[in-house]
Amino acid sequence: MQLDDHLYAVILAGGSGTRFWPLSRELYPKQMLSFLGPHSLFQETLLRLHGAIPATRTLIVTNVRQAFDLRSQAASIDSGYRFLEEPESKNTAPAIGLAAHALQLQDPEAIMAVMPSDHWVKDRSRFLQLLQGALEPARRGLLVTFGIRPTRPETGFGYVQVEQAAPRGPDRSPAGSPSDRLLPVRRFVEKPDGETARRFLEEGAYYWNSGIFVWKAEVILQEIERYLPQLSRLLAEVRASLGTAAEAAQLTRAYRHMEAISIDYGVMERKADSVVLLEADVGWHDLGSWSALDEVCERDPAGNIASGNLYDLGSRNSILLAGTRLLATVGLEGMVVVDTEDATLVCPKEHSQRVREIAEGLKRQGREEQAIHRTVHRPWGQYTVLEKGEGYKIKRIVVNPGARLSLQLHRRRSEHWVVLSGVARVTIAGRSFELQPHQSSFVPIGTPHRLENPGTIPLQIIEAQIGDYVEEDDIERMDDQYGREVVRPPETPPPLSA
Amino acid sequence: MQLDDHLYAVILAGGSGTRFWPLSRELYPKQMLSFLGPHSLFQETLLRLHGAIPATRTLIVTNVRQAFDLRSQAASIDSGYRFLEEPESKNTAPAIGLAAHALQLQDPEAIMAVMPSDHWVKDRSRFLQLLQGALEPARRGLLVTFGIRPTRPETGFGYVQVEQAAPRGPDRSPAGSPSDRLLPVRRFVEKPDGETARRFLEEGAYYWNSGIFVWKAEVILQEIERYLPQLSRLLAEVRASLGTAAEAAQLTRAYRHMEAISIDYGVMERKADSVVLLEADVGWHDLGSWSALDEVCERDPAGNIASGNLYDLGSRNSILLAGTRLLATVGLEGMVVVDTEDATLVCPKEHSQRVREIAEGLKRQGREEQAIHRTVHRPWGQYTVLEKGEGYKIKRIVVNPGARLSLQLHRRRSEHWVVLSGVARVTIAGRSFELQPHQSSFVPIGTPHRLENPGTIPLQIIEAQIGDYVEEDDIERMDDQYGREVVRPPETPPPLSA
Repeated sequence: MQLDDHLYAVILAGGSGTRFWPLSRELYPKQMLSFLGPHSLFQETLLRLHGAIPATRTLIVTNVRQAFDLRSQAASIDSGYRFLEEPESKNTAPAIGLAAHALQLQDPEAIMAVMPSDHWVKDRSRFLQLLQGALEPARRGLLVTFGIRPTRPETGFGYVQVEQAAPRGPDRSPAGSPSDRLLPVRRFVEKPDGETARRFLEEGAYYWNSGIFVWKAEVILQEIERYLPQLSRLLAEVRASLGTAAEAAQLTRAYRHMEAISIDYGVMERKADSVVLLEADVGWHDLGSWSALDEVCERDPAGNIASGNLYDLGSRNSILLAGTRLLATVGLEGMVVVDTEDATLVCPKEHSQRVREIAEGLKRQGREEQAIHRTVHRPWGQYTVLEKGEGYKIKRIVVNPGARLSLQLHRRRSEHWVVLSGVARVTIAGRSFELQPHQSSFVPIGTPHRLENPGTIPLQIIEAQIGDYVEEDDIERMDDQYGREVVRPPETPPPLSA
Repeated sequence: MQLDDHLYAVILAGGSGTRFWPLSRELYPKQMLSFLGPHSLFQETLLRLHGAIPATRTLIVTNVRQAFDLRSQAASIDSGYRFLEEPESKNTAPAIGLAAHALQLQDPEAIMAVMPSDHWVKDRSRFLQLLQGALEPARRGLLVTFGIRPTRPETGFGYVQVEQAAPRGPDRSPAGSPSDRLLPVRRFVEKPDGETARRFLEEGAYYWNSGIFVWKAEVILQEIERYLPQLSRLLAEVRASLGTAAEAAQLTRAYRHMEAISIDYGVMERKADSVVLLEADVGWHDLGSWSALDEVCERDPAGNIASGNLYDLGSRNSILLAGTRLLATVGLEGMVVVDTEDATLVCPKEHSQRVREIAEGLKRQGREEQAIHRTVHRPWGQYTVLEKGEGYKIKRIVVNPGARLSLQLHRRRSEHWVVLSGVARVTIAGRSFELQPHQSSFVPIGTPHRLENPGTIPLQIIEAQIGDYVEEDDIERMDDQYGREVVRPPETPPPLSA
């Protein structure tokens, strides 16, 4: 069922998750993880809308540092998705405002359904029914928010108080219109303390704020103008550049001055009139910590959620996610154990909210395990750091068929390449040649070089970097097909042969 | 204090531990681990005797597969230790019998103090005092066993029943002779069930069998002849070869026919007369499982024993042994978490006896993580497998100064060597040359080659193996300075240039 022609999806996919560390990393956040099935939460969000809102009317707002991975994930579903890349994360108000401008430029009547990319929705058809039900009030200029009826005195969510709660009980007759459950909103409330949350639960006129909104682009821009005038001005300045070659530079300039603020705090909490709530009885979960998996995943007969290279003796009610390394567990009860290539988490379920403290603590210490995985995705393929030691780093590099790395040089390291499989075309100091498996090549310090895969299967090589400094920032790109920053080397540039 | 000139130490170091997996491996057992300080349990055993029994009168009996690592560990204390290498592990009776022959050949009056290499003894001077006290009865032909007064109804040990228990309480006046506590033994008892163990504890005339014995070599050989005639015959056959070039081949032949049997079961349990027990009040622990560390290691203020690359939030009373990878733990209580390069264990302390089930289960599955670490020691240095994939294996190899690998070839793989640090002398197909850091070399399939370190600092190289089969057994050695098996290649052999 295709929904209204003026309805656009705005997927907020810029979050940098800390709660699912070590599976999530700053640059590989929760929405990119696929622990619930073959698709990531981000992909599930796209699939939820598939057939109802076409990819060409779906705008994904993300951080420039995560865009490559998300574009890859989106492309496996449909090639038509549109992306807006924020230069920095400034919370939801700038992202939503930017999306509203982009949509309204194209379609002055645009209605936008804003939603996070890292939540779980069980009942897709009900969700689409609610979107349909939100169209009419949105068209009338109302701000529609999806509210979740609380089941516990949760202190981790914002709440929405309505004038009067909807009657409890089933109201799911296929014919019944969801707009019957449209409730006038009295106010948005920040995350409460425990006592307040218990009171909200008792009083009954409070809903969890799901972060899903439906409104006209024009209307939310008016609200931003009213409540967030500085943001409004900055957005107005970049509007004309959206979709043009100047977009990235303009956004970089504007975002530098932007305040990081959520749409809830910046607009919704300050606004009383013309906000309505739809009770979203869709089987929603925010997946706020590892223990949430218990509520959305199937468990085995012992109550475990288990995967990967696991050797378990008699554990129960535990979340045991092994990777390729061996994880051996004995007699665990109610534990979370998550193993990745470079880091392992062990935590009782009741403490799984504290995992973000670990991620934050590691970040303060500047530790890589917080930000990236041992395997890093790049536009041309991926690399895995096999070992880093004093004066060397060893990587396995996979170059996709037809892809090529930038023409680059390093000032402090030499590189050896040994082809494991596939065919490499190598350019070193202007000379190009092909390498087959078992063959190798050497890139001296300071020598311009380029690696590409001219073949039809992935190219796999081992790279041994040797030098007194082997960090990723020792790179000068002279030519790059993925639009990354390029510098001219200070000396005479070599001929660009590729 | 040097003990009697006829007293020899026999250290049984052939055990293949499973209880401290994943730190211990089949080929890197508990006695090689140094989790209690700078020295391994094996080294602690040697140091306990240091100055009392010289290295030249200390005989270490071990398995040929573990001998290299133990020799290295022993050499860091004294170069004079003697080794007997068993071709297979056949429990303690063959090892003790073999040692008795070796000693008695050299000194017909030899008294041997037999002891395991993987136990913990707190009070060294008391231990030496007890050894001194055991000399006189051993000289008279008695079999002296060290007994530990039980503190709990342990079912994991054998027991020794004495005619009458020693009086309880302190008896530690420096002048008091330990032989005052020499107790006639009524019988040795196999590991009891729980009820029996409780009865033993109540009755009070039962001691734990520590596996430490003092006796004349001549006497234990007579006992073996009496109770284990087949073993006695096989040992008599190899006796003449001990210490000669024929020893290894003779032992291989004899051990093939030997029954695996402990000295306790084979001799001590069948014998009633002329056995005496010394109460060994030395602060003894068998270190039977991870939870034993609580009794012998110092804990931090939260009750934890913690080490390595650990990020902990509020855990208590836990054993948290991280390695070089990051281990993050939150709010654990009474847990054991041990992380190594290729395997992680998570287990509540009360289940730590079951760790051996994991090691055994992995062995049944033929998994490498049971047998070896990712880093493997060799006579010439060590190697670490960085990654193994379809058609390739990547190793970092460290060659000790002056050491060289065998001249060898591989039928199914090529090898690339990239020097990270140090200097390599490489011989490939008869041609020798040196490689400096940043330089590399290639060994085609089927080509004889050799790697050596002519320098004075360790040589570090990356080896990329590429081929359809990259297991360790694809090796034909043509010349080896460490006496490993050498074959002549079927084709025309190349000149042996190194």
